[in-house]
Amino acid sequence: MAKDRDITGELRIRVRFGPDAILGPGKAELLEHIAATGSISAAGREMGMSYKRAWQLVETLNAMFRMPLVESTRGGARGGGAQVTPMGQEVLGCYRALEQEARDSGASQLERLQDLLCDMSDGK
Amino acid sequence: MAKDRDITGELRIRVRFGPDAILGPGKAELLEHIAATGSISAAGREMGMSYKRAWQLVETLNAMFRMPLVESTRGGARGGGAQVTPMGQEVLGCYRALEQEARDSGASQLERLQDLLCDMSDGK
Repeated sequence: MAKDRDITGELRIRVRFGPDAILGPGKAELLEHIAATGSISAAGREMGMSYKRAWQLVETLNAMFRMPLVESTRGGARGGGAQVTPMGQEVLGCYRALEQEARDSGASQLERLQDLLCDMSDGK
Repeated sequence: MAKDRDITGELRIRVRFGPDAILGPGKAELLEHIAATGSISAAGREMGMSYKRAWQLVETLNAMFRMPLVESTRGGARGGGAQVTPMGQEVLGCYRALEQEARDSGASQLERLQDLLCDMSDGK
């Protein structure tokens, strides 16, 4: 499977637009889970996140951008549904593209760093 | 000063090699402060970090790579001195290069994201 060896270093990107306007892997993953499950609480559950925390993140995301990234209907039998809006899809797409570009451009530095790692870290 | 407008989005990179092997902006900054001050405690102070926390981060960094990134002499009158080793300089250089490459490659996505931000976030 592996060529010479695996690249195990995982690059995580966080964009900080301001103290309350940060977009990182957690919020991106939450958007993806909401899109997949149609529910904020189910998305949070899949990420091991409390209902309250998932809602807070959604509220932060919705306040951060010009239009809401997630629209929800509260109050259904199962707590209402939620969907990622076109704006949400666009933001998520941008973030994932940014991440991929960073990974591509940083591959050689990542490999250099990995060469300097302790054997123990390689072994697992 | 600004052209059309400022790019305010700040990209922060974290490389995760394993659960206890993470390199991010905090550790990189700590290394720079140690190099500048010649002291782990002074470096921590400049970052608003406790003495204990700064030492823990140094110990984590030293255990993470094949050779120590910081060498310290404990027990002097001011708690001993510390210096960033050639290995530390190399790791730091790699990390900063990775960061710069990610910023360069991600500039257009970052600008797209910024266009979608709420006006409030632009205003500050």
